[in-house]
Order: sequence, then C-alpha cells, then structure tokens
Amino acid sequence: MPVKENYYIGEQSLTFPKDVYLISSASVVGKKEGEGPLGGAFDMICEDDKFGEETWEMAESALQKEALALALGKADVKPEDVRYLFAGDLLGQNIATSFGLMDYEIPLFGLYGACSTAGESLSLAAMCVGAGYAKIVAALTSSHFGSAEKQFRFPLEYANQRPVSATWTVTGSGAFILSGKKGKVRITGITTGKIIDMGIKDSMNMGAAMAPAAADLIAQNLEDFKRKPSDYDKIVTGDLGYVGQEILINLLQQKKIDISKVHEDCGILIYDKDKQGTGSGGSGCGCSAVTLSAHYLPLLEEGSLRRILFVPTGALLSTVSFNEGQNVPGIAHAVVLEHMEQEG
Amino acid sequence: MPVKENYYIGEQSLTFPKDVYLISSASVVGKKEGEGPLGGAFDMICEDDKFGEETWEMAESALQKEALALALGKADVKPEDVRYLFAGDLLGQNIATSFGLMDYEIPLFGLYGACSTAGESLSLAAMCVGAGYAKIVAALTSSHFGSAEKQFRFPLEYANQRPVSATWTVTGSGAFILSGKKGKVRITGITTGKIIDMGIKDSMNMGAAMAPAAADLIAQNLEDFKRKPSDYDKIVTGDLGYVGQEILINLLQQKKIDISKVHEDCGILIYDKDKQGTGSGGSGCGCSAVTLSAHYLPLLEEGSLRRILFVPTGALLSTVSFNEGQNVPGIAHAVVLEHMEQEG
Repeated sequence: MPVKENYYIGEQSLTFPKDVYLISSASVVGKKEGEGPLGGAFDMICEDDKFGEETWEMAESALQKEALALALGKADVKPEDVRYLFAGDLLGQNIATSFGLMDYEIPLFGLYGACSTAGESLSLAAMCVGAGYAKIVAALTSSHFGSAEKQFRFPLEYANQRPVSATWTVTGSGAFILSGKKGKVRITGITTGKIIDMGIKDSMNMGAAMAPAAADLIAQNLEDFKRKPSDYDKIVTGDLGYVGQEILINLLQQKKIDISKVHEDCGILIYDKDKQGTGSGGSGCGCSAVTLSAHYLPLLEEGSLRRILFVPTGALLSTVSFNEGQNVPGIAHAVVLEHMEQEG
Repeated sequence: MPVKENYYIGEQSLTFPKDVYLISSASVVGKKEGEGPLGGAFDMICEDDKFGEETWEMAESALQKEALALALGKADVKPEDVRYLFAGDLLGQNIATSFGLMDYEIPLFGLYGACSTAGESLSLAAMCVGAGYAKIVAALTSSHFGSAEKQFRFPLEYANQRPVSATWTVTGSGAFILSGKKGKVRITGITTGKIIDMGIKDSMNMGAAMAPAAADLIAQNLEDFKRKPSDYDKIVTGDLGYVGQEILINLLQQKKIDISKVHEDCGILIYDKDKQGTGSGGSGCGCSAVTLSAHYLPLLEEGSLRRILFVPTGALLSTVSFNEGQNVPGIAHAVVLEHMEQEG
C-alpha cells in the first residue's frame, strides 16, 4: 500500500496511516445501572455505590481503576505494555482520573470534553495508534451520580425535585484497549467536533444543549465520508436522552437527513425510564462508555452490527459559568467502528 | 527518507514521521506580568485585568481569544485553515477555554493537565501535525490570577496572607501555531509524563508537589534520547518557582544528573520576586506558555539557543480532593524545541 501524504478527509474527519483495532473493553457500573435493561451485560456491578471508599470522588476513581484492570485482563495486556492513557471525567480538575489512574504509572494525557470525553479519548487514542506512536494504548472515562450531583446540582441530602428534562448521571466507567494488532472491531475514522452554542440557558436540559452539536457533527461525518445514514447500522449518541433525541432528529430533518431509523442513544438504553424514574435518560461520560463496551461492542464483534457511528456529546458548563449567566454550549466527537471479518 | 514503522523512543518519548514546526506564537498578559522582567517581550499587556469583561472567568476567555488571534495574524493563517485546537486552562470544566475559543468554530480537543497543559497541548498538537493529520493546528493555554485564586484559594476580597512557598498565578495566555511548513523552530520530540505522588499535602507549596514529576520526566527524557544535560542549552520548567527549583536540582543530583548549569524556570523569570511580592514565583498554565512565546522562542528563532527542553509541570488537585485529604500529585510533559538553520 502506498504511503499517503495526509489523512484528513473533508472538513473535520480523519482516517489513519495504520489500522487501529479496539481489542478489548470493560464496563464497571453502580447498583442502579445494574438494575437497568443492560444490567446483564456489564462486567461488574457494585452494590455499594461508594465502592468501599470514603467519598463519591474516591468511589469514581475506584471505578476507573477497576475498569482499566478488567479491560487489560481481557486483552491479556500488562499495564507496563500500555504506552499512553487518554482519560477524563466530569469533575473539576479531572480528579477522578488523576487519583484513579495514578497507580498504573502509565504516561497520561488528561482530557476534558464533558460527556463527549468518551469520544474524545477514543479519537486521540486511535490517532496515536494509527500514526505508529504506540503499540497499545488505553482510553477511558467515568462519571458518578454522587460526585456529579454534588458538583453540578445539589448535594444528594438536599433531595431536590428534578424537571422531566433532567438526565440522571450514570455511575460507571468504560475502558478500551486499542492496538495495531488485528482484532474483531476496527476504528476506521473519526470526526472531531466544534463548540456549538444555540443559546440554551437551562442546565437541567442538557439534551437540548447537546443536540445541536450532535446534529452538526453527524451531518459533517456523513458529508466528509460521503455516506448516508443507512451506511451505518446504528448512529449512537451518548446521552441526549428522550428530549435531546427528538431535537436531534428534527434538526437533521431540516437538513434533509433522516436518521430516525438508525438512531439510538446510550442515555435512553441504559435505564428503564418508567420503572427507574430517571427522567429524560442517563448522562455523564460514563454513560456512553459503558454502553459502548457492554452493548454495542459485542454486537460489532459478532457481526450483528457491521458499522456504527458512535457520537458522545458534551455540555460545556460549570456551576461558575452557569451562575454567571453564560449559555450552555455543546460539543460532540464521533468515532466510526466496524466489524472485521476474521480470516479463515 | 525511508518510512519507519514506529516512532516511539525509550520508555516515554516520541519522534514524528513528518517534521513539525512552530511557525508562530503570541502572548497576552495582565498588568503585573507587564511590569515584570519580561514586560517588554509580551505581545499585549492589558492594563485592565478584567479585559473589559464582567467576570474573571470571562476575562480569562478573552485572554485565550486574543492570544490565538495574534498568533494567527503573525503566521498569516486564517482561522478556517486551522484544523484542530488543543487547549485547556485550570478552571473546573475548562470554561475559560470553551467560552474563549467557541467563536473560532475550529474542532477542539479540550485538555486538562493542570499547569502542565502547555506541554500536553504542544505534545498532542505536534503528534497531530507529525502524523499528517493536519497541515496547521494551534495549541494554547491560559490562567488568570483572579479566576484561579477564586477557585483554588480564597476570593481576592478576603485578602489572605500567603506563605513564602506559595506561587502567584500568572494572568496570561500563550498561543502556538504548528505546521509542517518549514519554520525557524522545530519540535523534534516529546516525552510524556506519568502521575508522580510523593505524598505532598500542602496546596500552598506547589513547587514541592511538582518537582518530583519534573525530575522523573527530565531523567527519562535524557535516557530516552541518550542525551546529557549539556545537550540542551536550557532545560526550562514551567512553574516550580524558587522552592521547587531547589528540590528539582537536588532530586536529579541524587540520580547523578546535574542540571544546575542549564536549568531555568518560567515561574522564576516572569516576576521580580523582591519588587513584586510574588512569593516563590509565577504559576498557572499561562505562565510557561507566555514565557515560552515571549522569551524562549525568539532566542530559538535567532539561534542564540540551539536546543531546549521545555517541561511544564502540573499539580493535580482540586479544592474537593484537597479538602477530602488527598495528596497533591504532580505530572510533567516535555517538548524538545530546536533552532532550524535556514537554507541560503
């Protein structure tokens, strides 16, 4: 194969000089996620949402640590063989990541893309392996209901009421091992998002804040790769929830793009809305990560799904920016995942 | 030149398939930095530390926006020709970056490495250009005394006393334009850091928290590239300050590495300790960025410096992690910058 000069495609997409495979993954979740529709698929469900730790933040760190350990174990990879970690969480100064991954002693690129970080971390990890910068890298993200509510909304003890548009932060961490070594699922491209601000002011309606970024990115991905929605078996957003899904489908319909037949949302899949009282759906940068690991990757591995577009979305706010009257802009980062035929 | 299979060197370092040049940069700072020893070298000094904005956070966003505009202007590059931004700041959920860079409408990788983010952003930007993933990218970081004190320590109105080991957060943003197009300064390699925790508990002594990470990374860089300290004209840390510098030099001496003749620290250079009352020195992820842009890059461009190792360091804490009794671990990310001879 001749060496190409450059690997960018269209306005915002990339392919890679070398093949990039997702060789293993793991998902660790809390009790509520374990009771949801995907409960049987997660690698580990912890009955104690504090994971034996003293604080919500240390519990979230424990989630990341455990998810990476499981993913490494499945791939039969030792920590010292992982050249880089690409990781992040939702907490100020990424503390769940720092304290969760410290003991691995692996060079770390700390990332922040709000709930889109699952897409951002997979994108940068794929760029790294695809360039020949590493044989094996890991990408992981986490969120925790307790630490996120404390930081972004109200302490759990306050027991505030939630509007129906509010989402429920997933307690969970998903870890992914990427390698140039042939596996059953290949990352064949990425599309990287810009910040999109549609003037949303309601921090209890993240779906509405993130849907425009998802719509923009999905349209760009289709244009860059010259595909139509049906070229994907699924187009999977991270945590738009019911409210955001409707906005996304409508926004794309205005651009004459109909994704209604192939669209799914991890935030909708992870909870049973009626039985679990989770409002518009699940959210957090653990939501899309554990759903990709537990639900979509097995379908891609067995070939029930041939190609999906995975599009985690993030709402870019802090309590400071929100209280100072700033809007809630969104961002999305997409990864194309494909089933690979195994040679006989 | 034959195409190499892989580009990693030693334990933690990389070179790139394609040449990466730092073609322009810009620095924007506040009044106090403008009054310091490097005052004459910055591109823009703003008398009003709020930059005409309502809040410290919006002021920090304005810093990033302006720094990028100036760097683009110097390189004669239009925003739409920049394929990716690699950017971050110190605030929870990276809000200075999100709100500062939104209007550029450029795909964004949001990063968090505390004050090491200047090194992290240059590293990932160089990896991107070096792989042929983009013709032109930008890396930038910022910090602001007002927003950082408010977040990490006390509101300015509280007028608390500061221990001598405390550093002074630099109000400033440095922006860098990287390209494959030949320029006067080339990025020839990077070394990526692990989290190093030496059990420091004092959030008012960041230098001590970060020095072990810097020592570890500098030793690794020398080993990976088979260099001795004198192979660098300068080894430049980000914001260790006077307290951290002494620890760094001692730690490396224990490994039989003497960097005392070539070591400099941006936090020491940026203020006049005696006249400006800035304690152990400057800090923040704007500190190393503006000092690289205003002080070191001109020396590299003219050839007074031939090769430097730029090592921004970060202290990985939040007020939450600190108040919950966690240690303050450190991380460092290094970039090798070299003067390029221009062909006659």
